[in-house]
Amino acid sequence: MPFAIAKKTDLLRRFTLLLLLCTFSLLVQAQVITSPDKNLTLKFEVGEKGVPTYQLTYKKKPVIKESKLGLELKDAPSMMDGFTVAKTEQAAVNNTWEPVLGEQKTIRNNYNELLVTLTQKAQQDRQIRIRFRLFNDGLGFRYEFPEQKELNYFIIKEENTEFNLTGDHKIFWIPGDYDTNEYAYTTSKISEIPGLIKKATIDVHAQWPIKTLAVQTPSMMKTADGLYINIHEAALINYPAMNLNLDAKNFKMSSHLTPDPMGNKGYMQTDTQTPWRTIVVSDKATDILASKLILNLNEPTKYKDVSWIKPVKYIGVWWEYFVAGKSTWAYGTETNVKLTDDFTKLTPNGRHGANNENVKKHIDFAAANDFDAVLVEGWNIGWEDWFGNWKEEVFDFVTPYPDFNVKELHAYAASKGVKIMMHHETSGSATNYERRLDKAFQFMKDNGYDAVKTGYVGKIIPRGEHHDSQWMVNHYIHVAETAANYKIMVNSHEAVRPTGLNRTYPNWIAQESARGTEFEAMGGLAPEHTTILPFTRLMGGPMDYTPGIFQTDLSYYGTGNQRVNTTLVKQLAYYVTMYSPLQMAADMPENYNRFPDAFQFIKDVAVDWDDTWVQEAEPGDYVTIARKAKGKNEWYVGGITDENARTATIRFDYLPKGKSYVATIYADAADASWNKNPQKYTIRKVLVNAKSVLKQPIAPGGGVAVSIKEGSKQDTKGLKKL
Amino acid sequence: MPFAIAKKTDLLRRFTLLLLLCTFSLLVQAQVITSPDKNLTLKFEVGEKGVPTYQLTYKKKPVIKESKLGLELKDAPSMMDGFTVAKTEQAAVNNTWEPVLGEQKTIRNNYNELLVTLTQKAQQDRQIRIRFRLFNDGLGFRYEFPEQKELNYFIIKEENTEFNLTGDHKIFWIPGDYDTNEYAYTTSKISEIPGLIKKATIDVHAQWPIKTLAVQTPSMMKTADGLYINIHEAALINYPAMNLNLDAKNFKMSSHLTPDPMGNKGYMQTDTQTPWRTIVVSDKATDILASKLILNLNEPTKYKDVSWIKPVKYIGVWWEYFVAGKSTWAYGTETNVKLTDDFTKLTPNGRHGANNENVKKHIDFAAANDFDAVLVEGWNIGWEDWFGNWKEEVFDFVTPYPDFNVKELHAYAASKGVKIMMHHETSGSATNYERRLDKAFQFMKDNGYDAVKTGYVGKIIPRGEHHDSQWMVNHYIHVAETAANYKIMVNSHEAVRPTGLNRTYPNWIAQESARGTEFEAMGGLAPEHTTILPFTRLMGGPMDYTPGIFQTDLSYYGTGNQRVNTTLVKQLAYYVTMYSPLQMAADMPENYNRFPDAFQFIKDVAVDWDDTWVQEAEPGDYVTIARKAKGKNEWYVGGITDENARTATIRFDYLPKGKSYVATIYADAADASWNKNPQKYTIRKVLVNAKSVLKQPIAPGGGVAVSIKEGSKQDTKGLKKL
Repeated sequence: MPFAIAKKTDLLRRFTLLLLLCTFSLLVQAQVITSPDKNLTLKFEVGEKGVPTYQLTYKKKPVIKESKLGLELKDAPSMMDGFTVAKTEQAAVNNTWEPVLGEQKTIRNNYNELLVTLTQKAQQDRQIRIRFRLFNDGLGFRYEFPEQKELNYFIIKEENTEFNLTGDHKIFWIPGDYDTNEYAYTTSKISEIPGLIKKATIDVHAQWPIKTLAVQTPSMMKTADGLYINIHEAALINYPAMNLNLDAKNFKMSSHLTPDPMGNKGYMQTDTQTPWRTIVVSDKATDILASKLILNLNEPTKYKDVSWIKPVKYIGVWWEYFVAGKSTWAYGTETNVKLTDDFTKLTPNGRHGANNENVKKHIDFAAANDFDAVLVEGWNIGWEDWFGNWKEEVFDFVTPYPDFNVKELHAYAASKGVKIMMHHETSGSATNYERRLDKAFQFMKDNGYDAVKTGYVGKIIPRGEHHDSQWMVNHYIHVAETAANYKIMVNSHEAVRPTGLNRTYPNWIAQESARGTEFEAMGGLAPEHTTILPFTRLMGGPMDYTPGIFQTDLSYYGTGNQRVNTTLVKQLAYYVTMYSPLQMAADMPENYNRFPDAFQFIKDVAVDWDDTWVQEAEPGDYVTIARKAKGKNEWYVGGITDENARTATIRFDYLPKGKSYVATIYADAADASWNKNPQKYTIRKVLVNAKSVLKQPIAPGGGVAVSIKEGSKQDTKGLKKL
Repeated sequence: MPFAIAKKTDLLRRFTLLLLLCTFSLLVQAQVITSPDKNLTLKFEVGEKGVPTYQLTYKKKPVIKESKLGLELKDAPSMMDGFTVAKTEQAAVNNTWEPVLGEQKTIRNNYNELLVTLTQKAQQDRQIRIRFRLFNDGLGFRYEFPEQKELNYFIIKEENTEFNLTGDHKIFWIPGDYDTNEYAYTTSKISEIPGLIKKATIDVHAQWPIKTLAVQTPSMMKTADGLYINIHEAALINYPAMNLNLDAKNFKMSSHLTPDPMGNKGYMQTDTQTPWRTIVVSDKATDILASKLILNLNEPTKYKDVSWIKPVKYIGVWWEYFVAGKSTWAYGTETNVKLTDDFTKLTPNGRHGANNENVKKHIDFAAANDFDAVLVEGWNIGWEDWFGNWKEEVFDFVTPYPDFNVKELHAYAASKGVKIMMHHETSGSATNYERRLDKAFQFMKDNGYDAVKTGYVGKIIPRGEHHDSQWMVNHYIHVAETAANYKIMVNSHEAVRPTGLNRTYPNWIAQESARGTEFEAMGGLAPEHTTILPFTRLMGGPMDYTPGIFQTDLSYYGTGNQRVNTTLVKQLAYYVTMYSPLQMAADMPENYNRFPDAFQFIKDVAVDWDDTWVQEAEPGDYVTIARKAKGKNEWYVGGITDENARTATIRFDYLPKGKSYVATIYADAADASWNKNPQKYTIRKVLVNAKSVLKQPIAPGGGVAVSIKEGSKQDTKGLKKL
């Protein structure tokens, strides 16, 4: 048996062990590998009629029962059966790497790999490979299509990867859809989904619910005997996003790719591969949140210079658009406009938010409170009827409204050390955006912008493509890569759900791609929503959730009865529980000025981290996370609960031993809850050390936030130990 | 009756008469207007159930019988009936304008207009307008959708404009198709089309024949009593191209728009309009060719500076790719390549056409013979498998093959006063082209290119769109407009058929959009083909037919038995009969060197004109045209015939009276024909004046070409009068 051990020090001077175990000639039909810690076992087999199958166990409990692997092709024989094993190769990898921005400074990448080469004899020995990587926290596998005489270009009709589950698990799900991830989560048994899906398919703009029974990934499940299972994908490149077909009687899931206008599901050219299909497994919910499996399965970035990619804490001219008509994106009262119109001739509606005065006010506030940037939406022409008309050219991305002076505002912001964040709403017309992309980015560079929030509200153009189809998947990456050429960071909204591509394209700094804070102003989010998101949406990457709403009762503004369904403190906790290196303080400056003591936490909290400890978690119930600020002896803790009060247990064992630190604890008041007294909170300072344990009551729909810093003698004077 | 006469001198100091005849209050349901010369009469009526209709007569003979007008909308009440006339307005216009490049220095625009405003009472008084313009040479009309409360955004399901013909006309047709115009023409009776269409639908790459019976425009017909009728469209902007449904029993045609992937046929926002539907009519075939109706219906250009738009006579590294594998577009022997590959590592096939040496040879030849440019195809990476795989990223438009030195060749060409013409083959991936367009054009400017030949060989990406659908119609215009920003001229191949937009976008200097010379190397063209093209394809605008093949028998190259089905002289005649301000001498330099006396005509012939006289014409049989070179006392005449010999009658009555000129007559030899002795010709010089008449025998599949210049005493010495 060929056997090699390679030892090397990588550029980051980290230890790398590469163990190759290759069985070139041993052509058995069944193969077994285990995870490095031996907890997980993968069995691969070519069964009857040459159908490839796999199964996965965790601590000897089945996680995925025998499940078929294969793909159907368009106008070509399928890759479903008739396979024999031509070659198997094994490898073991254990190294580390450093993300540009992240939850940890260093990420361990430790897996055992099985690579199976399969041959279809009846198809002139056409070959595919299936590569399995078994980590301690789960499995990743993908199909690979090597360059070969019998396979060059091909079209995927459907990928038929099965995930046969072991029982009627509890599942946190949203309906399968080709265009939107902005659904509210339903928690149910798998068998209950058919009865619930109609109700769960709430109205979302430009949605395209799958007609057959399907749910989206990341799909989070919990078994009756306490196993947590998360199914998603990693490295979604040049391929459509995957939904999961559901056989709710037999607890079987299978891949359902997003089609293009022709109903085709992937245009492929060898040498190529599918994204990784990922199954994260543990008997601890905290392990699911701590998993870096999806990032590990993505390729390292090819960008040579990443020094310009920085974490961003920002405010914006934004939330005011959502509350009771305070102001508007649009400048004119007209409702039928074209880009070719002269927008200086429109009738001003008098409530245009992105005006010079308002933007300067925000710049002043950002500067005074050390924010990096001010997002300004509604600065550019086209908002009078931007929405819902499947219109190709809504925006040009370079022409401001008459009351937004680009040069003047750039100079003003620059004089105060603040950036303005660009906003590129495409209205779903990716066509129009791509046409104008270089000019739009050049305009940004010419005017001092270094980050852009992109938006895809609406039905996609090219018409018939979907937000999650292959063409659009390529589009988002094209935008990220083009932005990188201009050293611009991208924060995409309404794009396809993330799959860890922030490793490969680190300037694609964050995404929305789920039901975020804006929906608090449009019917509200369930208090449990944000205890589910880390187990679902955030498995793929950072989320621009836009937390920080202090004025949660929106009737405060004089109209409407909308309500943000959290306490004020829970909004603070989000800065820790909802990971993103780009974080907004989404409320209006005047509301922060009303609560300066609570606002201090938002000012203090880091957005990039040396390390992370998931302390407590249960999907749908609660999440408590502690993190160490990147390059600083500062730690931040966030804990949230659903609609039920609970007591969070916060440990400090990550603190350097033998030293006391000043912990500032932001807590819900005893009589607070998400719908009563949400703005009542307490702030106390105590001394903590590595042995301290905080038992902190949290209100219904509430949270807790803690900042931990080194204190001077004066700082610590009079402080009690926890 | 309000009545106004406005007299003004336009910027070009031409006489303009604008006569407005408005009937604001006279709400009769039937309206009649006549052409300025009274030959044509249009009657518009709102008939039973409020259905709008029109009919057209020429010298009291019906041309179009009563035909319905209207459109169906998607998810909205139709615009087919329920109309009443709200307002009618009439106007008379008679002025002139000067095209940037053209067949005439000055074009007369003389028509009577009827504008009818129609109201649908049952649809909250929803309004449309139908605007008719009746010229001496035919009718143009379009639907207009004014901005109004009841109509903002809408989607066209189908336009149902009828053209009810008067009988079983002779028709020169190609099958209706959403993707290609590159069919051979069939000549038949209308009633014979159903029996012939299967055979006529020959194999063309990426074709999409319409499943129901339909033909393309321009549709050329001749009635039993000698009326010539041509149906096409003008100013195709932001709308899909029109085919014509055919009821071959009742001789009814109706509009059939090209759908998008969703089956929709037009995304509209008021204030907007359809293209013009055009019916050119005459009892003289020559009048059809002389018609400027389609150009007149297009808008003047908005370009402020057009000084950089110049006629182009060019040669190319091109024909050698078509003859017997002399050379190839591709550089490498590999057949599965990606843009991300390192093309310098490919295995050279040794026959790459666009190599430095070959290009320099062409530059030398162009410089020695006063050509403006050398087209070089196959210069850029990606040609190894560019074709037929519906692949999104085939070319990047900026990376040369290793043996093509952009800077060196630019310097070499510039030193000799020659331009290299860029080639952008998109392989049908408009998506990829749009993404890279600005960079591609900037690359051209950086390297001295001022014209580009674009190509769209293959199925369109965005997938499901067609070459002729609204998205692509917008794409071609986007390319032309973007090119204008860089002062680049565009010569598009495989784009939607032209509709006179070279008036509005004069840098869109020519198009292919029909079966051109390349097909002579792939099965051959019928000798009559080029007697039909002026009546069909060229009605819409200039064609880059790429004439000038001297070595017509392609077995000359040692392999194959292909043949260009013309005499050598017919190839010369094409420079006059096939109008384009961009003309290629398509054969290889070595062939021109073999026939320097005949080549002299190509060197001499103008490509931009002060005036044009269509002397003889019959679709499918013959065409003889004389033209005066722009700004020069030189005239050129071209005459061609189909497979039958004939005697062309060439008059010279356009010459200034009382003066003799030297005419050089290039004629088929007595025993020449397209398939025997095609290279036998005579060249003679004679003196001609305005009273001269030349009766010139033309061989089967042959032609005649005449150049007429002022001669010095020495030049004319010994020359006989014609």
